[in-house]
Amino acid sequence: MTPRISKKHQTNVAFQGEPGAYSEAAAYLHFGHDITTLPCETFDQVFYSVTEEEASQGVIPIENSLAGSIHRNYDLMQRYDLMITGEYYLRVNHCLLALPGVQLKEIQRVHSHPQALAQCEANITKLGLSPIAERDTAGSARWVKDNEDRHAAALASRHAASVYNLQVLRENMEDNPANFTRFLALSKDTQSVEFNDEEDFKTSIVFSLPNKPGSLYKALSVFALRDIDLTKIESRPIAGKPWEYLFYIDFAGHIGTDVCSRAINHLNETAPFLEILGSYKRHKNNNEIVLE
Amino acid sequence: MTPRISKKHQTNVAFQGEPGAYSEAAAYLHFGHDITTLPCETFDQVFYSVTEEEASQGVIPIENSLAGSIHRNYDLMQRYDLMITGEYYLRVNHCLLALPGVQLKEIQRVHSHPQALAQCEANITKLGLSPIAERDTAGSARWVKDNEDRHAAALASRHAASVYNLQVLRENMEDNPANFTRFLALSKDTQSVEFNDEEDFKTSIVFSLPNKPGSLYKALSVFALRDIDLTKIESRPIAGKPWEYLFYIDFAGHIGTDVCSRAINHLNETAPFLEILGSYKRHKNNNEIVLE
Repeated sequence: MTPRISKKHQTNVAFQGEPGAYSEAAAYLHFGHDITTLPCETFDQVFYSVTEEEASQGVIPIENSLAGSIHRNYDLMQRYDLMITGEYYLRVNHCLLALPGVQLKEIQRVHSHPQALAQCEANITKLGLSPIAERDTAGSARWVKDNEDRHAAALASRHAASVYNLQVLRENMEDNPANFTRFLALSKDTQSVEFNDEEDFKTSIVFSLPNKPGSLYKALSVFALRDIDLTKIESRPIAGKPWEYLFYIDFAGHIGTDVCSRAINHLNETAPFLEILGSYKRHKNNNEIVLE
Repeated sequence: MTPRISKKHQTNVAFQGEPGAYSEAAAYLHFGHDITTLPCETFDQVFYSVTEEEASQGVIPIENSLAGSIHRNYDLMQRYDLMITGEYYLRVNHCLLALPGVQLKEIQRVHSHPQALAQCEANITKLGLSPIAERDTAGSARWVKDNEDRHAAALASRHAASVYNLQVLRENMEDNPANFTRFLALSKDTQSVEFNDEEDFKTSIVFSLPNKPGSLYKALSVFALRDIDLTKIESRPIAGKPWEYLFYIDFAGHIGTDVCSRAINHLNETAPFLEILGSYKRHKNNNEIVLE
């Protein structure tokens, strides 16, 4: 895999979770294998590490095709002064991981995060396994390794198997294959995503609107009148401000182009609050199920 | 609490989770305490029970102010032929529950769903407790009860305390108080939400649009031109159909009124797919932090 950004020295990428987490897998797939990674306990710590330059980039999940957007990470994007420098769509493939040499018929229990257990419910039932909740998927892989338990398996990424030296007994344990997570790369340095003519870009913004009927319609006119395509729109009520909303919009194009910067200036005329979260290369997803 | 719908016989309400779950608490708050409840293992089973008339109503979470929309439940709404008959905004108040007579200083471990543990991280750390993952919040309360463990507490609803006869050692354990979950009531019978002039209604719809720049803008014009206020908008890519999106929209008004039915007919002229999920009374949230 070719690294997606040019690097003068080795990139250190912060992610939330234990080694072997899906976020770490996304970091390697997005930046290439020539990186170091920095596991963080919380999302907040991912933002903090990049801000304090302990890591040059952070990778966070922002939306999942089954579970929706992770609003918490949009909040953190507003609190910290980081920019989006890239996106990556990861197909969530829950694998059944066990100690090397163990056979499927020996397995009695399966450890994982409750959401992963729920997403694999039909296959867990079919195999007659008892589900055991853990704090995260990678942690459940570590548990199987540390406890040397031949009757336990973990549901986690293929990446976790290589981190903890476990074998993959089954792939695609999830009941619904349309299970994707979109990750964002965050950085203080946005040089890597300067505009060029040869690539497709996307821009993410967040803004609020006055509480008047039709205000969203008028806001969208700044894009429609310039033939700018929207790739995401989401409203979210603002806590403590009844009837006021935040809108998250992604649109096609780079903020460095005239047409996009004019649209943003136009939107600024009516939006009480507007923040550009970043312009970055669109991830072209070559999976069978394409999200966008 | 006055029941929100008129009932000829006792209402039986299906919900996902164990007795004491937040969904069960929402069912009692929405329908009143004169109901029976039916715990279901999965969301799918909630929809199935109502469809098969084992329960007359179902209650499902649809969005959380921190975690976002639960797309899975939108999918199930399209698969089953049920209508939304009501909504309820529940303030998520994670309580620290222990056996009666136990003092806070005796507690060493706290059991709960990883999401609840994460939402209470600062307070758990402050109290010096070790977090233990469980499959759900109510199940962790049952665990403390069944194991008669004086050194363990659960993070769960106040409702779970009464179900499992536990005491509430601490309230509001969550770090962010702007933590609300919106629940929807679902039924085959929509008589209870016929239009009347005295109440505020909301309508939820889901539709797709042709992949042309400006198609969302044109779609929203059917509401803007009629001064119909939107209360939610969310786009979601359609799995397997690149560049096509589903849109979830909630708007103010009842589908039985001329203005709303004309807007829907107008939208039908361009939307390849459109489904009305239901018209229902708007929940007026009297909490300090108002979501909408």
